[in-house]
Amino acid sequence: MKYCSQCGSTLGLGIPRGDNRPRHLCDGCGHIHYQNPKIVTGVIPEWQDQLLLCRRAIEPRYGLWTLPAGFMENGESADEGAAREALEEANARIRIDSLYTLFNLPHIDQVYMIYRGTLLDLEFGAGAESLEVSLFQEGEIPWDQLAFQVVRETLKLYFDDRRRHCFGVHSGSITPLEGAQREYRIQLLGE
Amino acid sequence: MKYCSQCGSTLGLGIPRGDNRPRHLCDGCGHIHYQNPKIVTGVIPEWQDQLLLCRRAIEPRYGLWTLPAGFMENGESADEGAAREALEEANARIRIDSLYTLFNLPHIDQVYMIYRGTLLDLEFGAGAESLEVSLFQEGEIPWDQLAFQVVRETLKLYFDDRRRHCFGVHSGSITPLEGAQREYRIQLLGE
Repeated sequence: MKYCSQCGSTLGLGIPRGDNRPRHLCDGCGHIHYQNPKIVTGVIPEWQDQLLLCRRAIEPRYGLWTLPAGFMENGESADEGAAREALEEANARIRIDSLYTLFNLPHIDQVYMIYRGTLLDLEFGAGAESLEVSLFQEGEIPWDQLAFQVVRETLKLYFDDRRRHCFGVHSGSITPLEGAQREYRIQLLGE
Repeated sequence: MKYCSQCGSTLGLGIPRGDNRPRHLCDGCGHIHYQNPKIVTGVIPEWQDQLLLCRRAIEPRYGLWTLPAGFMENGESADEGAAREALEEANARIRIDSLYTLFNLPHIDQVYMIYRGTLLDLEFGAGAESLEVSLFQEGEIPWDQLAFQVVRETLKLYFDDRRRHCFGVHSGSITPLEGAQREYRIQLLGE
């Protein structure tokens, strides 16, 4: 961030009056440019005892499996966004049932909200960002080919809860372990 | 948003290839400037059967009562942000216990996440953004002087749950009723 989106002047870094951390400040008009975490909203689409996953046709993690999910847009709710992503990535019509996991990923300034949802029909298929879309029984989940840790943790919680016939709402954080490649610390709030 | 924060060129509006909605696009470097909802994170600070509220020393809703809450920052988790806000607005040290409400406010592109938390001591006091900070029993809550609908709905759910001795996690949306002043439609997911 180098230029003011309001007036085009150059930006500096400084702590605004009454604030306690550096922000991008406009040298010209004085506008303060805040940067905040983004929400990724997604869904576990259920069909009887099967779940729908998408194989990614885009980077990062091309070719690996994931839940339908993407950046929440202005003007929508997170549950509407999750249903929209299922439609875009898997041509799947879904009823969103309940919030399921909320995971902070502070190292990349993202918060994932993943809902449980019900597939309304079986007319799904790969959207532009998916190579293929398929239903999986628990024993068929491609655990070693999942795209993201947040998807892995959500699915682990999901099958644990399903075995106990008790679905909670889980919230926590996923942070990379220092010095390790793709290893993470998982912290669940109050569990 | 008129100028590119990367190169300073003017921005136009257009639908990027593979996208389906208008974005701010840079005429110079081609950068796409996405705009996404912001997270407001807050806490219900509990001390035995009392809750801590803050009276706002800033606009909007100057002079009215609210829960400690504010915009989530990059590099933190939402629960860390809620504890930070309690410290900044009420000089209150808090243990965050669990996620309690998640409310979408799509008309202002915000998502509120409000946690339950426990005050660790009684050494609280008004921070720079508060006129005063006080503990309230249920019967003392200033219902007609609450700053925001999302605070009102969260406190209503809280006292209902407390009476039933069963705290869930509630998620939903709050949207203004067309043609009305400060009247809202409340939708709770799966309730």
